[in-house]
Amino acid sequence: MLTGRMMDFPLTVTHILERARTFFPNVEVVSRRADRSLDRSTYGQVYARGLRLVAALRKLGVRPGDRIATLSWNHAEHLEAYLTIPAMGAVMHTLNLRLAPSEIGYIANHAQDRVLLVDKSLLPLYAKFKADVPSLEHVIVVDGKEDGLLEYEKLLAEADPAGVTLPALDENSAAMLCYTSGTTGSPKGVLYSHRSTVLHALVACMPDNLGIRGDDTVLPVVPMFHAAAWGLPYEAAISGAKIVFPGPHLDPESLLDLIERERVTFAGGVPTIWLGILDRLDREKGRWDLSALRRMIVGGAAVPASMIDGFAKRHGIEIIHAWGMTEMNPLGTVARVKEQLQREGDDEQRLGYRATQGFAVPFVEQRHVSDEGDILPWDNTSMGELEVRGPWVASSYYADEGKDRFTKDGWFKTGDVVRICGEGYVRICDRSKDVIKSGGEWISSVALENALMAHPSVLEAAVFAANHPKWSERPVAAIVFREGMRASHEELAAHLASSFPKYWLPDAYVELAQIPRTSTGKFLKTKLRADYAGIFEK
Amino acid sequence: MLTGRMMDFPLTVTHILERARTFFPNVEVVSRRADRSLDRSTYGQVYARGLRLVAALRKLGVRPGDRIATLSWNHAEHLEAYLTIPAMGAVMHTLNLRLAPSEIGYIANHAQDRVLLVDKSLLPLYAKFKADVPSLEHVIVVDGKEDGLLEYEKLLAEADPAGVTLPALDENSAAMLCYTSGTTGSPKGVLYSHRSTVLHALVACMPDNLGIRGDDTVLPVVPMFHAAAWGLPYEAAISGAKIVFPGPHLDPESLLDLIERERVTFAGGVPTIWLGILDRLDREKGRWDLSALRRMIVGGAAVPASMIDGFAKRHGIEIIHAWGMTEMNPLGTVARVKEQLQREGDDEQRLGYRATQGFAVPFVEQRHVSDEGDILPWDNTSMGELEVRGPWVASSYYADEGKDRFTKDGWFKTGDVVRICGEGYVRICDRSKDVIKSGGEWISSVALENALMAHPSVLEAAVFAANHPKWSERPVAAIVFREGMRASHEELAAHLASSFPKYWLPDAYVELAQIPRTSTGKFLKTKLRADYAGIFEK
Repeated sequence: MLTGRMMDFPLTVTHILERARTFFPNVEVVSRRADRSLDRSTYGQVYARGLRLVAALRKLGVRPGDRIATLSWNHAEHLEAYLTIPAMGAVMHTLNLRLAPSEIGYIANHAQDRVLLVDKSLLPLYAKFKADVPSLEHVIVVDGKEDGLLEYEKLLAEADPAGVTLPALDENSAAMLCYTSGTTGSPKGVLYSHRSTVLHALVACMPDNLGIRGDDTVLPVVPMFHAAAWGLPYEAAISGAKIVFPGPHLDPESLLDLIERERVTFAGGVPTIWLGILDRLDREKGRWDLSALRRMIVGGAAVPASMIDGFAKRHGIEIIHAWGMTEMNPLGTVARVKEQLQREGDDEQRLGYRATQGFAVPFVEQRHVSDEGDILPWDNTSMGELEVRGPWVASSYYADEGKDRFTKDGWFKTGDVVRICGEGYVRICDRSKDVIKSGGEWISSVALENALMAHPSVLEAAVFAANHPKWSERPVAAIVFREGMRASHEELAAHLASSFPKYWLPDAYVELAQIPRTSTGKFLKTKLRADYAGIFEK
Repeated sequence: MLTGRMMDFPLTVTHILERARTFFPNVEVVSRRADRSLDRSTYGQVYARGLRLVAALRKLGVRPGDRIATLSWNHAEHLEAYLTIPAMGAVMHTLNLRLAPSEIGYIANHAQDRVLLVDKSLLPLYAKFKADVPSLEHVIVVDGKEDGLLEYEKLLAEADPAGVTLPALDENSAAMLCYTSGTTGSPKGVLYSHRSTVLHALVACMPDNLGIRGDDTVLPVVPMFHAAAWGLPYEAAISGAKIVFPGPHLDPESLLDLIERERVTFAGGVPTIWLGILDRLDREKGRWDLSALRRMIVGGAAVPASMIDGFAKRHGIEIIHAWGMTEMNPLGTVARVKEQLQREGDDEQRLGYRATQGFAVPFVEQRHVSDEGDILPWDNTSMGELEVRGPWVASSYYADEGKDRFTKDGWFKTGDVVRICGEGYVRICDRSKDVIKSGGEWISSVALENALMAHPSVLEAAVFAANHPKWSERPVAAIVFREGMRASHEELAAHLASSFPKYWLPDAYVELAQIPRTSTGKFLKTKLRADYAGIFEK
């Protein structure tokens, strides 16, 4: 091999930290506190305090490779941890405060976290799982005091940053640890490297992806305990963009106030947040000044086309739909309309593309595969499991769990069942464990649920598979009706008949008071499958 | 070390090629031909023809690591070579057709090129150096026929692309070879890796740098034989942007016609090109429709502030000044005005920043160093040699020449003498070999030349050092007066006195009919230094 003669310069979070300090020391980092006040810091201060954090953690005995956990909302101290824990060679482990305490305890213990940074307001949550995590040697309260625990501000004040140097790091060394909150099985850890984190940030910044730039004011509504907040803290820091952190205040009123007050240009979060905001904007026309807002990235769940359309037509705000996974650092696809499709299509077609999951960003590759392992054509019809690969896709889980999610030829099995059109746009039809396999054909539970929930009498619907002696599996619909409303099975079947082939229609409907859910609010279809396993057996 | 668990997915040009084919097969690639006609191709065709090129080159015996030279203007076939020669594991070596034939011959022989792709119009140039390159086994005429030489179109037509697979490549393997055209010493080769080429393209695409995106139409005026055309072919292909190649027609009329006709949104080239265009626009107000043009990147030489201002104020076109070197793939700094400076400064201050070389792009690091090796403060006063490092900076030259350009601690010495202000903006004062060292102080020859050339009687001025018994060196100004005009030494000294400290003023003025130049048109100061070496010795 003829080797290029270029510098062996590693891609590390350290460079991002140093760059923010060097070129953007006065750019603001704003945090909404628990008491709703706004706290103003800068990248220069984040750097200076970050070095003190490094000194303090070293004094506590933290060594390269150690896992340091955070249990925190989005704020400047969380950014200090994001930038400096990886830069000292340790691993930043974000704990998801929305999980059940037993799950958090399982995860922190599984990761063998040695230190925990915890918001004062989350101490009651910590109390519920601390007994499960004997590996925790030090607990540091970020924004207050608590008897018997360390105090973040005191540690920083007492630390001596003078002698602190940041180590030269291998770009393949671990930087962050994030656990999936799967609906089945135990949570599994994904260990991001410096390289994956940096490459993800660079590609996310490209104009056709998140497009973060120096004159942006970035509002990460997505929690920093979800898949590295889509890399937004790194993308803002490398670009010198101002950051505004919402703290624990994620209600529409608080977010709209922050967007208006701080002249936010870029915001990112899950669809439910934006649905609430759209509702407020519709009801309070003219109350909010969102004129600075350029783009909103929405991901983490499928975005209804009506929401994209509503923001665009009624409020002139561009929503960009993106898809990713914790296993991908997390960005995988972005639903930008290609220039040619923009020019040739009509409004409805363009909206159709914008409501898909989009197509792969640079250096991510996508394919979908049948149950038999055949790579499927991009014909917008064939349904198969989406597989991805790329420099920020996991090659294995922490502690080598879940080996069945990785193919022999080097792809990650996403667990999403998709169709892909000729232009490469991916449309998620189902989770692979929820897709219904009837007589050799696949039936999308998600498509049926969406159609059922569009019926005026239906509040919620979950479609799941039940075993069937002839067809292997057949769909069953669990329905929660709106108060005082009802619809017969025949009416529901007629409602579906116009949109789906006959064999897709559920063979049974069951009425429930509520759909069973996981701790994160997703439908618990494993319970439905178990409860109704024998429905078609005589 | 705790290693991250992410895929070992290499950063290669192959991915860029595959991505363009997969997601952007119908995006246009337009080439202006020698006869001025416009030829339309697509990324899909570039891919299909590229695979045929791979088959043809393999049949000729090309192996991984072999250097394949091009002697070509900017056109679709050159893009085919750019994308597929690296993807087959060979090395794309662009020959600079502006150099003297003897220099081209030296370079091709030094690189041991095995195959040459040459434009028919450049065969007379090839004839002048072919005897110097015994390593050349095959010469392929790109756009025509010539007795005794291979024909590109015929080779492609006869090639069998069916069995062609592109190899899995190490990201550190060589992708491109570009030679510097230094004003002193022999040209030296810079061997770009796939990794450096890809990282450079990703960072160049970021919104604050070149900001290439999918709905751009990119016009690379910068020749593809200059430092990989700033990576524009790769940046366009990875983004799915349409490309328009000007071929050999680089006059203002041809370029303006192309910008208007093809609705170009992004153009990149050297200042002289844009000065000519600005002149045409000023003289022909309203003739040209440049409404699609969003940004023009100008680099390769210092950009006069008056040009940036003229385009902005008179024509509403944003000029972005960037600086780089062949040794850096080539992008190093971009002169964007930071958001805060944009807000706080006045027009003149903003223009001042835009006319600097800018500050380092992500993952490039900058410092400047005194003759004694001290790292200098960013005080906008201290002058020192600019040093850079990063993943797309050369670690050595091909064949290990020029070792003195690399420091022991891993930085590349750019040869540019600069000042750096507190915000990090770099201002080039001189080339290090041209800076005048007088009594321990440094004097910028470039600053004096610019001031002298602003005098109404002066057509050209070159300031250089002559040895001095007391001060080590003192400045001498070589002056070419405008026809029929003159100025005395006293008048010139008085003209300079208001702008410079007294010790900066030249001790001698010599009048010349013309300034000696290199083959690329730069002042040949080594000759001036030699001619006037004894001017201060009695």
